[in-house]
Amino acid sequence: MQILVIHGPNLNLLGSREASHYGEETLDAINEALHLQAEAQGVTLVIHQSNSEGELIDRIQAASGTMEGILINPAAYTHTSVGIRDALLAVGLPTVEVHLSNPHAREEFRQRSLVADVVAGRVEGFRSRSYLLGLDGLLGILREVGS
Amino acid sequence: MQILVIHGPNLNLLGSREASHYGEETLDAINEALHLQAEAQGVTLVIHQSNSEGELIDRIQAASGTMEGILINPAAYTHTSVGIRDALLAVGLPTVEVHLSNPHAREEFRQRSLVADVVAGRVEGFRSRSYLLGLDGLLGILREVGS
Amino acid sequence: MQILVIHGPNLNLLGSREASHYGEETLDAINEALHLQAEAQGVTLVIHQSNSEGELIDRIQAASGTMEGILINPAAYTHTSVGIRDALLAVGLPTVEVHLSNPHAREEFRQRSLVADVVAGRVEGFRSRSYLLGLDGLLGILREVGS
Amino acid sequence: MQILVIHGPNLNLLGSREASHYGEETLDAINEALHLQAEAQGVTLVIHQSNSEGELIDRIQAASGTMEGILINPAAYTHTSVGIRDALLAVGLPTVEVHLSNPHAREEFRQRSLVADVVAGRVEGFRSRSYLLGLDGLLGILREVGS
Amino acid sequence: MQILVIHGPNLNLLGSREASHYGEETLDAINEALHLQAEAQGVTLVIHQSNSEGELIDRIQAASGTMEGILINPAAYTHTSVGIRDALLAVGLPTVEVHLSNPHAREEFRQRSLVADVVAGRVEGFRSRSYLLGLDGLLGILREVGS
Amino acid sequence: MQILVIHGPNLNLLGSREASHYGEETLDAINEALHLQAEAQGVTLVIHQSNSEGELIDRIQAASGTMEGILINPAAYTHTSVGIRDALLAVGLPTVEVHLSNPHAREEFRQRSLVADVVAGRVEGFRSRSYLLGLDGLLGILREVGS
Amino acid sequence: MQILVIHGPNLNLLGSREASHYGEETLDAINEALHLQAEAQGVTLVIHQSNSEGELIDRIQAASGTMEGILINPAAYTHTSVGIRDALLAVGLPTVEVHLSNPHAREEFRQRSLVADVVAGRVEGFRSRSYLLGLDGLLGILREVGS
Amino acid sequence: MQILVIHGPNLNLLGSREASHYGEETLDAINEALHLQAEAQGVTLVIHQSNSEGELIDRIQAASGTMEGILINPAAYTHTSVGIRDALLAVGLPTVEVHLSNPHAREEFRQRSLVADVVAGRVEGFRSRSYLLGLDGLLGILREVGS
Amino acid sequence: MQILVIHGPNLNLLGSREASHYGEETLDAINEALHLQAEAQGVTLVIHQSNSEGELIDRIQAASGTMEGILINPAAYTHTSVGIRDALLAVGLPTVEVHLSNPHAREEFRQRSLVADVVAGRVEGFRSRSYLLGLDGLLGILREVGS
Amino acid sequence: MQILVIHGPNLNLLGSREASHYGEETLDAINEALHLQAEAQGVTLVIHQSNSEGELIDRIQAASGTMEGILINPAAYTHTSVGIRDALLAVGLPTVEVHLSNPHAREEFRQRSLVADVVAGRVEGFRSRSYLLGLDGLLGILREVGS
Amino acid sequence: MQILVIHGPNLNLLGSREASHYGEETLDAINEALHLQAEAQGVTLVIHQSNSEGELIDRIQAASGTMEGILINPAAYTHTSVGIRDALLAVGLPTVEVHLSNPHAREEFRQRSLVADVVAGRVEGFRSRSYLLGLDGLLGILREVGS
Amino acid sequence: MQILVIHGPNLNLLGSREASHYGEETLDAINEALHLQAEAQGVTLVIHQSNSEGELIDRIQAASGTMEGILINPAAYTHTSVGIRDALLAVGLPTVEVHLSNPHAREEFRQRSLVADVVAGRVEGFRSRSYLLGLDGLLGILREVGS
Repeated sequence: MQILVIHGPNLNLLGSREASHYGEETLDAINEALHLQAEAQGVTLVIHQSNSEGELIDRIQAASGTMEGILINPAAYTHTSVGIRDALLAVGLPTVEVHLSNPHAREEFRQRSLVADVVAGRVEGFRSRSYLLGLDGLLGILREVGS
Repeated sequence: MQILVIHGPNLNLLGSREASHYGEETLDAINEALHLQAEAQGVTLVIHQSNSEGELIDRIQAASGTMEGILINPAAYTHTSVGIRDALLAVGLPTVEVHLSNPHAREEFRQRSLVADVVAGRVEGFRSRSYLLGLDGLLGILREVGS
Repeated sequence: MQILVIHGPNLNLLGSREASHYGEETLDAINEALHLQAEAQGVTLVIHQSNSEGELIDRIQAASGTMEGILINPAAYTHTSVGIRDALLAVGLPTVEVHLSNPHAREEFRQRSLVADVVAGRVEGFRSRSYLLGLDGLLGILREVGS
Repeated sequence: MQILVIHGPNLNLLGSREASHYGEETLDAINEALHLQAEAQGVTLVIHQSNSEGELIDRIQAASGTMEGILINPAAYTHTSVGIRDALLAVGLPTVEVHLSNPHAREEFRQRSLVADVVAGRVEGFRSRSYLLGLDGLLGILREVGS
Repeated sequence: MQILVIHGPNLNLLGSREASHYGEETLDAINEALHLQAEAQGVTLVIHQSNSEGELIDRIQAASGTMEGILINPAAYTHTSVGIRDALLAVGLPTVEVHLSNPHAREEFRQRSLVADVVAGRVEGFRSRSYLLGLDGLLGILREVGS
Repeated sequence: MQILVIHGPNLNLLGSREASHYGEETLDAINEALHLQAEAQGVTLVIHQSNSEGELIDRIQAASGTMEGILINPAAYTHTSVGIRDALLAVGLPTVEVHLSNPHAREEFRQRSLVADVVAGRVEGFRSRSYLLGLDGLLGILREVGS
Repeated sequence: MQILVIHGPNLNLLGSREASHYGEETLDAINEALHLQAEAQGVTLVIHQSNSEGELIDRIQAASGTMEGILINPAAYTHTSVGIRDALLAVGLPTVEVHLSNPHAREEFRQRSLVADVVAGRVEGFRSRSYLLGLDGLLGILREVGS
Repeated sequence: MQILVIHGPNLNLLGSREASHYGEETLDAINEALHLQAEAQGVTLVIHQSNSEGELIDRIQAASGTMEGILINPAAYTHTSVGIRDALLAVGLPTVEVHLSNPHAREEFRQRSLVADVVAGRVEGFRSRSYLLGLDGLLGILREVGS
Repeated sequence: MQILVIHGPNLNLLGSREASHYGEETLDAINEALHLQAEAQGVTLVIHQSNSEGELIDRIQAASGTMEGILINPAAYTHTSVGIRDALLAVGLPTVEVHLSNPHAREEFRQRSLVADVVAGRVEGFRSRSYLLGLDGLLGILREVGS
Repeated sequence: MQILVIHGPNLNLLGSREASHYGEETLDAINEALHLQAEAQGVTLVIHQSNSEGELIDRIQAASGTMEGILINPAAYTHTSVGIRDALLAVGLPTVEVHLSNPHAREEFRQRSLVADVVAGRVEGFRSRSYLLGLDGLLGILREVGS
Repeated sequence: MQILVIHGPNLNLLGSREASHYGEETLDAINEALHLQAEAQGVTLVIHQSNSEGELIDRIQAASGTMEGILINPAAYTHTSVGIRDALLAVGLPTVEVHLSNPHAREEFRQRSLVADVVAGRVEGFRSRSYLLGLDGLLGILREVGS
Repeated sequence: MQILVIHGPNLNLLGSREASHYGEETLDAINEALHLQAEAQGVTLVIHQSNSEGELIDRIQAASGTMEGILINPAAYTHTSVGIRDALLAVGLPTVEVHLSNPHAREEFRQRSLVADVVAGRVEGFRSRSYLLGLDGLLGILREVGS
């Protein structure tokens, strides 16, 4: 079973960037932890990060037929991308949205998520642990569907 | 270590109520699963459900000094209670907000959570699994703080 | 056939309270008239009034399995209670919403009813007669469903 | 005693039109039921239907001096006609507004009624029975005023 | 020189209708005063009243080529008719909008005039004198244009 | 096969009216071009123009049972008529909405079309050619449905 | 009989300023015309212009007891001054508001007049003639009150 | 003379709760100070605190006939309770609203008070002194009414 | 200890102006009462009233270095003056805002106070007593700061 | 004569993606039909699809000097891209906007098109036929301009 | 060549006032730096500061015919003065708006500038340097116009 | 010292594009002028233009550690990109935002800048000179920080 993990713009800077919002762990450390947890569950992860909306859409489209679920942190595109929403709708895979920080405690424009109503579940505010909880939740959904 | 678990109004009807939104599991089943997971982690849970906003505030206030964290599904009061928000602020314990369904895919008035910006993390949309993921996340936060 | 009649907050003061909006009849007088009309139709009424949102939710929940319909005047909670809305959705009984005064001719915040779109029918503005018309309408719906 | 009954635009299509919202009864059947109920109460009904806002205003104006009350379903004009509102204000007769369906469970623009705050009472959502309950309520008001 | 005078819906009831807003003069009295003032200025008035939006549009269209200006009180259609606005734009004659009452001191929806920004001048609040002042102003505009 | 073509208010003035928005062609010229195109496709057109909302509703209602589709330019009523919307819903025929000008480049209130979400397709901004493209598109839809 | 005439900020520049909105007449010319018309009616005018909100309030206050009516063009302060509104309410004299241009055909923020609902009548868009019509209307009101 | 003092939700935690907003005094200390001030003025206070909206409504209702005024800090219910507003309207006693902190310097949703327009006076921002000033003001009102 | 007392526009008319909102006492009577109370507390008051925003700003600026606190009723400028707000921020003295009437029970635009979030405390609705309570509260704050 | 055809994000998935909104035809089939129609009219099409906003802007810019018109379906970027709007304004070529589905019958955020007011014409809701009608309309515009 | 420099309300306090927003330089120091830069460019500056909106309008009006450009920091009046906007429009001189702080990083009501769309250029956020950059930019514009 | 200069989408078309908004200078000419000014100040510029949001984010990220400040004209992305905002926050360098035209005098959606509150200073409306003033201002900030 393969899962696509999508990291949105500026997440490649994790660890160096605004630690008060995003924590001090690097993206590599998060990915390593995700691979470990996936391996333990007999699942393979394909992980991509990009700053480009178009490239993120490309990656989501490519998941169709090869992946069984998507774990996505759209970062800044959460609030502005109808294109990523449409791509998620188009591939139609069970998807979980995660956020490192709690957007509700930040700027007004971060209150609106354009993908929130088309994903199966959402996890936010647990720093890097949001990814691990989100993967856990996604696997739960996939097993239930698969049973 | 003791954790307070708060179930808001109408959650006592789980299983019988609108299965398409909330799943088919009863509240007893969810509580049992929570106790099992807590036990495995060496944690004790104190669980309350009430339909009354005042009683929920009472319970949250009582957590001060006896509990180390709060796992809360305020249900309908999520969208209308400043009182529960104020109680959470007053006791000042690490809190995780969980929802069975994904409020973003429902009525407009369910988009606003009056507690979202005062909790540490949030989990929504995974049906009964939201509670287990939320407890997992809360314990992670508590261990980090405690270390 | 049993019907639950719910009177929301401050309706216990009817007769003494703001007669220009609510009329001069007491709640007891209204209840008596309702019982008479119900009796004439071979129906039994169970009537409750409370100032507490939680208690009103409790009463609605208890209707499940014992009552066949609900006649409700949520009064002040009409405009603020998602919990009562959720309780009505949970028990799923045919419900009629009544108001003594015409909320459209009053403050802006009384224009929004949180239960209006989940009830079968609504009657407003006829003073105490709103209840009798509402009961009449509810019985019509129940007979149609039952036929 | 004469009562004016006004049916707004597209109500002449009742029975053939969107049965899920409006029910399956024709306008003729509703009118017949209204006449029967009126007769039983010793009241005469004058009934008009029109698709034209101007014609509806003409009819309401003509009620002045000849009718004692108005039972009106302004249909689509409920949400757009200041002219009908002004006509009702001008003749100043006790008026009851009825709707077959429950507008609160439909499109956003159907939430606003331009006549709601100038009528004595309102009945909505009981299909054709809304008219009968509305007539009943109107007669109650007229008798009270008359006594 | 001919001027078209348009009276919108319900103005035929003037004198009998809501005297606190509109004054006690009848429409006939207003028209007579207008004819007198016009005559004194060597101008002929063609006056129409209708409750129908379509008929008012017809009348405005017919002014093209035969009239030199329009004095209009669109009454209730002030706030709802794009059609009358479009007709005024289409005939392109100097137009003055008048109102008996001061809409700014009434309901919120009376604050918006759909013709206000396409007329040359506006007079409101002087009761029946609004018409006379408006005619005076219109003639001033026409003489200036004509000179 | 018969198609109903509806022209809304003020379109009878085409050619003389605001050429910068609507072009210089008259309504007769447009109708002739429509008849020619219809004839070439073996279709008969029934064409009506009116300035009255009520009459337009009458015409749409009459299409039921005799016409197979509707081509409509509701003009000013696009933005204000719930009655025309309801009539289109009531007859339930495939409908195409056309506009001569591009409403998005004009006043704010022209941005809202009350029929836009109940028609099959929309064509706007091509001057008189909007009608021909709209008819073409409507015939495509009808043939597909009919096949 | 004395009437206070108030000219708001920047009206001292009339004639030199934005002729497309305000016309080419100077304030002196307007005042002269006003004096002529007043004299013909046996009325004395006291005229003030100021760019200062405070000074305008001072002048309005001073009218109490010495003037019988106020003719005011608050200009820019129309849209921002609660103080002038309060002063008009405090002296309680019949007041007419005039504008040279038609604010409805200009910027959004010019749509709101903070004095519109506390004046007796309003005249706008007739260039300098707005003042003469306004004075005419004010005298009409004063005579009626006086009779 | 008896005065009812109502403390809303979470005020029982005063002293321990968010000292930066609410000060460091406990509710007992505030009550003691209030009793002292009342005694000095020959007035008896009946003081209640509750976290339950329903119970607060009960207490306000019970004031009818036994109390002469109400001093209320509705706390969180200030912003959400139509029920408390209705209860205050129902008993119709002179009421003063007090707040420890200045809600205008806090979250957006604390800007709206549902009771503000039905109370006689309001005091906010003086910490515990708000109560004493409020009591002082209430007694002033009562004496004036009583004289 | 010196305190600056600022009275905003139109307060010089107190006693003669709209007694239903502002009471019947004159500004001189209020000032005398304030001086008496101040004297009793060993404090000197410097009192200014002006209708000019600029002059009020001048006065507030001059308080810097000579006064220890400000008691202000900005009256109409409460709702429109960023300049007074900025002046209060600039001098940085403890400030109390008072209002004679309760703005929440009046026009919508009186709901917004541009100084509310920069003052220490607020008192509204007690007529002239608002000033005395406000002075009392301000002295309490100053003594606490000074202790 | 060359025409640029632009397909926005996710349109490469046509046929596999949400058939209820977009129909079952693939993008290749649509392109083939467009080429056929263009060929019949003696026009050459240059067709591009991309998921990247930047690449779409690049393509539009490149049309300057080589193309004579643009047929564009900006898909998701319709609602979020000021950049594409600016590119269309910069090249200044006659442009037609097309949509497969009718955005007015979908989510709120799809109601706003950032290019709608800068294109010559728009076609929406005819599935793949929208492109053919749009091309037809664009050629009409180009021929008119060219004549 | 003479340039008018306008400093709005409270800028006379610069240096002593809220240094975190406005920097520590005094207004005299800024004026001196401006004079130096102007002298170097062969330009004379006339500089005024006032807390009064009316006086600022007077000064701007006086620039007509004697000055060639305006450099203005309207400070608090930026957000509330239509009068200053109108004065700038009336004199019609090239104008540059400057701000010491960045209003976008402050209160919501500071986001709106009533003069922003009528000035040629704007500079904000560079503390006292904003004035020097603004003067530089204004001279550039004047030279270009003059060439 | 190295400064990053970022030109957003469509700025590569400068000179050919909408001269009334953006002036007639090409981007090359602007860059040359920037290099000259930088050289004179002993600073090196690294200049990039891109139509792609992702590429712009990449470039901003790369500035971390190699550049000392950023001069950015985000063009269309000013109004839609949270990603560029987040990148600027992440690298944390002193940044100045410049615009050729004055966005306040254009479409509503250009009033909102998503980076305005995270930059140090802003310059807008001076055509190509905006860049030179912005660079000047940025160097001033850097020297101050560096001193």
